[in-house]
This record gives sequence, structure tokens and C-alpha cells, in this order.
Amino acid sequence: MANSERFSGVIAPALTPFKADFSPDTARFVKHCNWLLEQGCAGLAVFGTTSEANSQSGAERRALLEALVKSGIDPKVLMPGTGATSITEAIELTKHAVDLGCSGVLILPPYYYKNVDDDGIFRFFDAVIQRIADDRLQCYLYHIPPQTVFGFSLDLIGRLIDAYPKTVVGLKDSSGDWNNMAAILKNFPGFNMFPGAENHMLAGLRNGAAGCITATANANPAKLRELFDKWQTPEADDLQASITALRKTIQSFPMVPALKEIIAHFTGDSDWKINRPPFTQMGAEEVRNLFVELEKHNFTLEQPKLAMAGN
Amino acid sequence: MANSERFSGVIAPALTPFKADFSPDTARFVKHCNWLLEQGCAGLAVFGTTSEANSQSGAERRALLEALVKSGIDPKVLMPGTGATSITEAIELTKHAVDLGCSGVLILPPYYYKNVDDDGIFRFFDAVIQRIADDRLQCYLYHIPPQTVFGFSLDLIGRLIDAYPKTVVGLKDSSGDWNNMAAILKNFPGFNMFPGAENHMLAGLRNGAAGCITATANANPAKLRELFDKWQTPEADDLQASITALRKTIQSFPMVPALKEIIAHFTGDSDWKINRPPFTQMGAEEVRNLFVELEKHNFTLEQPKLAMAGN
Repeated sequence: MANSERFSGVIAPALTPFKADFSPDTARFVKHCNWLLEQGCAGLAVFGTTSEANSQSGAERRALLEALVKSGIDPKVLMPGTGATSITEAIELTKHAVDLGCSGVLILPPYYYKNVDDDGIFRFFDAVIQRIADDRLQCYLYHIPPQTVFGFSLDLIGRLIDAYPKTVVGLKDSSGDWNNMAAILKNFPGFNMFPGAENHMLAGLRNGAAGCITATANANPAKLRELFDKWQTPEADDLQASITALRKTIQSFPMVPALKEIIAHFTGDSDWKINRPPFTQMGAEEVRNLFVELEKHNFTLEQPKLAMAGN
Repeated sequence: MANSERFSGVIAPALTPFKADFSPDTARFVKHCNWLLEQGCAGLAVFGTTSEANSQSGAERRALLEALVKSGIDPKVLMPGTGATSITEAIELTKHAVDLGCSGVLILPPYYYKNVDDDGIFRFFDAVIQRIADDRLQCYLYHIPPQTVFGFSLDLIGRLIDAYPKTVVGLKDSSGDWNNMAAILKNFPGFNMFPGAENHMLAGLRNGAAGCITATANANPAKLRELFDKWQTPEADDLQASITALRKTIQSFPMVPALKEIIAHFTGDSDWKINRPPFTQMGAEEVRNLFVELEKHNFTLEQPKLAMAGN
């Protein structure tokens, strides 16, 4: 995205590495984020579901974000997740990201609650945006019913865009439901919709999607970038097929633990395997199966570039 | 409960009053909590679902809890909710409550996540308890699948009790499923189970429940206390029937907004109506209907005692 005002391309919801005592490992996080950008990611959606963001405190998330900026990463490529069930915390995290210069924020709805109607969700976003009261704020709605149960209806998206056309600028759709993504693209041209998984990346781009925000970008960023660059070429369908096949393999294991096993394996840094409860570490046999399956895709983590990035 | 080691009786998940700018209204909160105790509640489960706890930040919850203790409320009657999806925050809030002298804490499972298995939830509680490392900690598990989707299986409850018999001492069951409550009572004698709604209070007490923790204790504390005192008398079934009928009326409206309308109406303090998003305020007609229905129960908020308590 670089100099454009809104995000486009492959955005990685960066994994968060932890130490044995569960504290965030800042140095390893900065290294991983830099590597993702070098591998072709246009932006970093740090503190999404894949980042175990909701297992961290607000203070931990703010400290990690500041460390990224301090390390020299341009805040313009950052789209941190700043959602929280607590409106106080959503406001604090969002204000912090805007003040740091992040080009956008990805905001969950207040996910503790169920049977919430559109008026309640509208009231939540209305209050957050009014209290930030900053023209620099660019909100991407985080639609992820598999975790939050409820989400953003087409009607609600329309209401939020109408009320805040310069602020509510996009959405990550992690519903897994292509019909929903297609309806958003059709109903809201110019609204930056990102499929939340790469299996819908090509179809998305052909229908006006801005790119893709997907967990597996942590392991496969260069290939995803290649598809983004070549989506209008004759190679696109074959690229999508091979990317989708790899995705299916990875998601047949627990996603975050599997991604961490992959990074640990290819970097030789076993501390990468650590995750926070309620996630658990994969068993030895499950890990062996993961790498047997990945071998069938000739999967590699682009080792030369990784070495270049961090060492 | 007073001098006993564990909670029993009617425990109120106290409502949290807010000001027009959504900030917590500490003075009104302290007044309401004192009134609940004067009306016969044995304890206060502050910061539950009814308290809009998950709409507040950790700092706000800590400040309100400190204000209660500072006001003279014995911390032994306090069972604050200290759960959070973030394990860091769950540890911070729990440690704070233990250090203040609260007799117990009510802990949600890490509710952002779905498809979490028992191993993951066990790992979460194991980490929280190990890191608090304080003999004073008494955990009540907060089982509320209508909000968290997943909850505590019988097997998991047994594992947690086996691992921490002096720490994991009870559970609030807000499943609404009497069969689940009965199974917990049967499988874990001596474990302090509280039905999460008063419609199961008498059946619970007859089968070994420790009392009841219910939202409507905010509006109907004296009657609930009467049932607790008289559950072994011939009057008990009639008392339960009238209490259940009132409960059904109140829960046919949005629970937290309706309870706040009731307090506002009977105290003449209209600021009590304010709630945080994603809740919304009830419309004027819905409010009228609420009071028409309450009138049929000859409902009153025990005005004389309220006046005595606060003014």
C-alpha cells in the first residue's frame, strides 16, 4: 500500500511469539514482522485472532506496537487490531494506534455479548468513533462470526458507512462465506473488503476486493504476494489452486499452534512453539503429521530471505 | 455468609451505574451495593454479566472494587468477577481481588475463543492459579454458555477440583439447564454450586446448592432472601412460584436495561437508565409495558429500606 491512503494487497495478521513464562517476546516479534514485509506483505494486521491478541492485555499490545515503530517499521503499514468487548479499552487501544500514526485499525465488535442487535453494535462503533474524534482514524470492521458469533450485517455496514464515510473504510471478512463477501463487494463499491482467508483471494480480487488478510500469510507470504501481483494473468488460477491446497493442509491442524510449529521448525528456534492458554501445544505425533503433509507441497519458508531478514 | 469460609445464600451480581459520559458512577454504585446487603443479600458478585463488567476496563473494575472496600463494605462478602479472555488481565484482576481480601472470585473461561477443548480451559485456569500462588484464592467457575458458547464440562470441573481442591470451590451455573445443575450437585458434593437464576433456586437448595446468584437480585433481593430462609418450610413452593413469575416478567424484557429502568423508576434517579453499548436503552413504550406488567405482581423495590440505606 505504501503511499496510497487505504490498505491493499496481502496483509499479515502477525503471530505473537511468547517466552516460556508467557510474556511477549518483543525481539522475535519485531524480527518476524520485518520478515513478513520483506517477503512481500503490504501491511501487518498485528493483534488479530492469529496474533492471540485477545489473550494479551492492552498494555502488552501497546508495548509491542510501540516496539515495531521504534524498530523502524513505518506505522503506515500497520493495521493493529484494537477491538475489545470493553468500550473503554477499545477507545484506549484505538486512540493509541492513531496517535502512533497507524494507517488503519481493525476493530472487533463487543464479542462477549450475544443476541446483540444492529442498533447495539452501531451504538458501540458510534461511541468509539465519536470519542476518538480524529480525522486520521480509519476503521476496518472485523467480521469473524466463527469467534464472535454475531457480526456485521449488510444493513449495519451500510449504516456505518453512511454515518462515517471517511472513517469506516473497509472490512475483513472471516466468515468463510463467499456469498457474504460477494454481497459486500457488490453493495459497497469503494469499500475495502479483504477476504479473511486466501482460498477466496482470487475470486475476491476479480470482484473488487482490496487484497487478503489471512493467518497463513505468516508462513506463506511470498506465494500470496505472487498471486496478488499476477491475479490478472493466465497463471492466476493455477497459483490460487496451489495456495488453496496448502491452506487446506495447514487448517486441518489447529491453526495458531501449527503456524508456530512451522516457524519454529524452519527457523530452528523452538521457543516459537509457545502459545498462551486456552491454546495448547500440538503433540509430537501431530507435529510429525503436519510436516509429512507439508512435504507433499514442497513447502519451505523461503529460508534465504529469512536469514537475510533477521541475522 | 459472614463468617463461614465459603459463600452461601443470595448473591447479587450488582448492576454498575454509569454517568452520561459512560464513566462509572462510583457513589451510586456504593449506595446500591450497600442497599443490596441491607435487603438480605449474603454477598455481592460484582462484575458479572449483569454488571456490564466486560464493557469496563480492568482499571475501572479495580477502582470500583476499591471504592466498595473503602466505603466500609467487608471484603469478605465480595465475589468479584475477575475473568478475562486475556490471561494477563485475568491474573491481574484476580490478584487484585485476593489482595483486597475478597473471599472469592468468579472467573469466566477465555470467552473470545471457540472450539476450545477441556485441555485448553484447564491450561488457562492452571496458569492463573499457579501464577497467583496464594492460599487465600477461592475460585468460583462462571459457567455461562449463553454468552461464552463453551463452558465447563463435568469432566473438566472434576479435573480442576482434583488439581486444586482448596482453591476451586464452587460454580455459578447460568446455563439455564437444570439437568446440568443437578449433575454438578450429584457429582461434586461439597462443591458450592449456585444456580444462575432464581427459577432453579428451590430445586437447587433441595439438592445441595449453596444459594443463588441471579441478576434479578438487583430488584428483588428481599423476596429471594425470604425464600433462602424458608426453603425448608411449607411456604417454600408458593414463594418459589411467585418469584419465578416475577422473573419471567422481567426476563421478557432486555434484562440489564430493564433492571436499570426499575431502579431508576423506584428511586426517582433517571441516570440509572444509562448503560454502555452494545446495550441500548429501552424505548418509552417498552418501558411503559414493563411497569404495566410489574404492577400485576404488586412489585415494589422496598422503598423504605432504600431511603434508609442511601439518604
